[in-house]
Amino acid sequence: MNVAFIGMGTMGAPMALNLLKAGHVVTVHNRTRDREIPVAEAGAIRAASPQAAAAMAEVIITCVSDGPDVEAVMLGADGVIQGAKQGAIAIDMSTISPATTRHIAAQLAKKGIHMLDAPVSGGSEGAKNGKLSIMVGGDEAVLTTAMPVLQAMGTTITHVGPIGAGQITKAINQIIIAGTYWGVAEGMTMGLKAGLDMEKVVQAVGSGAAGSWGLTNRSGHMLDNEYPLGFRTRFHHKDLNIALEAARELGVPLPIAAYVEQIETGLIARGYGDEDLSNMARVVREQAGVDQI
Amino acid sequence: MNVAFIGMGTMGAPMALNLLKAGHVVTVHNRTRDREIPVAEAGAIRAASPQAAAAMAEVIITCVSDGPDVEAVMLGADGVIQGAKQGAIAIDMSTISPATTRHIAAQLAKKGIHMLDAPVSGGSEGAKNGKLSIMVGGDEAVLTTAMPVLQAMGTTITHVGPIGAGQITKAINQIIIAGTYWGVAEGMTMGLKAGLDMEKVVQAVGSGAAGSWGLTNRSGHMLDNEYPLGFRTRFHHKDLNIALEAARELGVPLPIAAYVEQIETGLIARGYGDEDLSNMARVVREQAGVDQI
Repeated sequence: MNVAFIGMGTMGAPMALNLLKAGHVVTVHNRTRDREIPVAEAGAIRAASPQAAAAMAEVIITCVSDGPDVEAVMLGADGVIQGAKQGAIAIDMSTISPATTRHIAAQLAKKGIHMLDAPVSGGSEGAKNGKLSIMVGGDEAVLTTAMPVLQAMGTTITHVGPIGAGQITKAINQIIIAGTYWGVAEGMTMGLKAGLDMEKVVQAVGSGAAGSWGLTNRSGHMLDNEYPLGFRTRFHHKDLNIALEAARELGVPLPIAAYVEQIETGLIARGYGDEDLSNMARVVREQAGVDQI
Repeated sequence: MNVAFIGMGTMGAPMALNLLKAGHVVTVHNRTRDREIPVAEAGAIRAASPQAAAAMAEVIITCVSDGPDVEAVMLGADGVIQGAKQGAIAIDMSTISPATTRHIAAQLAKKGIHMLDAPVSGGSEGAKNGKLSIMVGGDEAVLTTAMPVLQAMGTTITHVGPIGAGQITKAINQIIIAGTYWGVAEGMTMGLKAGLDMEKVVQAVGSGAAGSWGLTNRSGHMLDNEYPLGFRTRFHHKDLNIALEAARELGVPLPIAAYVEQIETGLIARGYGDEDLSNMARVVREQAGVDQI
């Protein structure tokens, strides 16, 4: 298909490369134009604005940092809305709030442009090897049309509900991670303080009801107090704030997600925002006197 | 081997049956004597007291409710300590505090009786089919001697450290479960309130960093607001209190485990103590107005 891709960041650039590999015609744009070059060298067309990129496209993908960025790219003076054909499909793959998503979709709809929200999980690794998990909100028929494009970037593509539902699902993902990782951090700290053989403890508890992806894949970081990437704490913090805002609108109190958000606020202030988010264990360890405060 | 087994409860009785099946000579005792009958019919010898049960045994197992029960059975007037031979191995498979465990072990040691603490996970299902996970603290040579007995009851037998380390590992297991389940409960409630297709949401987030045993096996209970057993809330609550007491002694603050302990206190007071512990989702759902308060 004829695809426009706006946002050549750590995620967007490898995703656009996978679209090229799958045989799609890809036009790219990035605010910092130099970032378009590596993807252009692999065969993409460069466009000077979101409006220009969208002009010829059947599917227009945005993958940028935050809600205001998506709003500017989609609805701004040289935005997608100015250039896209009637019947085109705009897919936002950023992680932003469901409320902003619905606002943008309503504006695009006035010009006959469809929209899907399709945030991802799987990190830069998943973006590179085309194995992202993509959570899609929006009209099912629209998704069916866009499916060949999404399949070039992800292996698990799940339609979870109407527009905004993809973003709520991503929020749920980050909420669950907050509780799971924190529980693992408390458990690991307890064992460290008691002087147990923690490799064996993880093995003993990991196959039962305490088992999780976090325990299997992140307890080692917590025990070593070293947090290589992974997924940055400041990105998880951004996502948790989106989740808490959406939960507030829905009237859902999330005490543990809110607690972890506060912990991450402190970690970021102390310069730990670019570590993997399993670094919440830093705080548990400190509070228990495992490490110096 | 010649094994005494004290405590014919939901866990103890099927564990003793598995010892018989494996060819061990088993003597059983239970405070309520009638409970010995089914295991005696399968070939066990009945004894009138822990002292009498211990008299001929190489290995003496206790599997009772709580710390004071283990103390009475091990150290009481007609307790194991009065009957056991020098060099016998006492194995406590109850879940009790590490401090009580170490106290009992010290008393037994004065009479030349070895002790291992070996709490289990895997529930009544695991006890029946001999597939318990057994977390062992104590001397490695003693464990080696007792291994054929433990292997009749469990598939994963992990030596985690000196006496008391098994109990700390069990505490870690329950601490991690508290955080993991609560995170899942927050995520499920968010999705319910937003009206998402939750089966698809669980599928979308379950294979990534939000994945856990709790999400795979207990999110359905939380979404249905029905909590069949499983593992009783009042038992997890007992175990969390042991964990919090041990953590206090070690100087480890566990904010989320403590929070979930308080939630469970409320659930038990309201008559929900005999449901599966995933019923902590009741509270999250109520607070979000999914169900009537």
